[in-house]
This record gives sequence, structure tokens and C-alpha cells, in this order.
Amino acid sequence: MGERWCLIIIREAFDDVRRFSEFQKNPGLAKNILAARLKHLVDIGEFEIRPASDSSAYKEYILTERGRSGFPIVVAMQQWGERYLFEQGEIHLVLLDKENGEPLPVLKVCSSQGDRLGPADCYRQRVVTEVRGEE
Amino acid sequence: MGERWCLIIIREAFDDVRRFSEFQKNPGLAKNILAARLKHLVDIGEFEIRPASDSSAYKEYILTERGRSGFPIVVAMQQWGERYLFEQGEIHLVLLDKENGEPLPVLKVCSSQGDRLGPADCYRQRVVTEVRGEE
Repeated sequence: MGERWCLIIIREAFDDVRRFSEFQKNPGLAKNILAARLKHLVDIGEFEIRPASDSSAYKEYILTERGRSGFPIVVAMQQWGERYLFEQGEIHLVLLDKENGEPLPVLKVCSSQGDRLGPADCYRQRVVTEVRGEE
Repeated sequence: MGERWCLIIIREAFDDVRRFSEFQKNPGLAKNILAARLKHLVDIGEFEIRPASDSSAYKEYILTERGRSGFPIVVAMQQWGERYLFEQGEIHLVLLDKENGEPLPVLKVCSSQGDRLGPADCYRQRVVTEVRGEE
């Protein structure tokens, strides 16, 4: 999922882009690259292909549950980019809450008690993947 | 920041890796790639170089505020990977809370009122970057 164009395509999908021709509006994304990336994203289970919702002959690329689970990654990257990648006066996109039109609060890493955690509050440990039960 | 090795190097830094020789322990990361990626990360302001904290001749790569702000991205990717990238019975790393040894709660995108938001609850809008005031 880490490849740059894959992330851009997934971000577009979160903006409800579904068709090849819509994804292709992204400047700089060549048709053959888009086709290859979409195929890869379908192969690894990020997208599934469905008939068009308007009964036309088009097919639509819809995020699977696995794909939709990438939403916090896309939001974290978007918010980080909003903060660091633009100069004063430069035009860019910000992520807003439909309910009130306000910027989304910046994602915070929190404990189960809701306390904010930094890198020093966490550690990584080797585990064997558990058998996934019903959720 | 989106390049794969850059993200891996930044993740190591969040685990308190600071020296070239320590970063180099990562299997698959060739010395010349590591040197080039670290230089790039210093150039774009993710890391700063400092003299070693133990007064030895080594230098240390320390995340800047900009670099540390990538923590939610790294956590979101780690948690997504924990969920989707490993087969049952496979050994991998999970991110735990030092306080209680429990897995970190999965990052959620929330409104300022604390309600959980999905992609359909958000929109992106063009803005001109504001002059940054004191925070």
C-alpha cells in the first residue's frame, strides 16, 4: 500500500471517485500507470470491481473493507501534508468536517484511557498472529 | 515522506534508533541507500544531525518537530499492517502501550465533538495556506 500512486488512488476513492475516467483526471497520472496500479490494488484486495451503479456499461472500483480501513492513514498523511508541505499563500486542499465545515481535529495517538501517547510511551513486540475470531 | 525506506527509517527513529550503524541493522537496507535516504531526510527537515549523546565521535540522527509529527502516520500504517499483512501463525511486531502492555487502540478519525467520522463525513476544500501564528 505504501507506493505513492496507490495512496493517491486510494485517497481519490475516499473522495468517492469510482471510475477509471474519473481517476484519470488526476494530473500526472498516466493511463498505463493508472491501469497497472488499479489492477494491483484489486489483486491485493484494496478494491473490488462492480458494475456501474447507474446500470451503464462502466465498471466501478469500490474500496473493500481492507481498503476502507486505510482511512486513518490517508487522514494522517493529509493532515501532516497540510501542516508541512505548503508555503504561505500557496493553494492546497484541507480536510473538513461536513457537519460544521471546520478542519478535522489532528489525529492523535491515544491510550485506551484516552491519554495522548508519544513514541516514548509505546513499544513494539514480536507476536504470532492470532486466529481471527468474529468481531 | 511517502517513499518506503524513508518511512521505515522514520519508524526506526520512533523506536529510538539514532546512529547510522543502528539503522543499518535493518535487513535489506543497503549502506548506500541508507546514506542517501538519511541525507534526503535531513535535507527536507525530518531529521537533524547532532553530536552523540555519549560524547563519542559518532553523530546521531534526531527527528525534528516535523519528523515527530509523522507519528500518527507511522502508527496508522503499523496498525493497518498488523491487521492485514500477516497470515495466521506468522510472527510480526505489534505496537503496545508501555503503561499496561496492551495493544494501542486503533487510531480513529473523530470530529471535534469526539464522534467517529468516516470518509463520507468529510470533504476536501481548496484553501490558501494561512500565515502561521504562534500556537
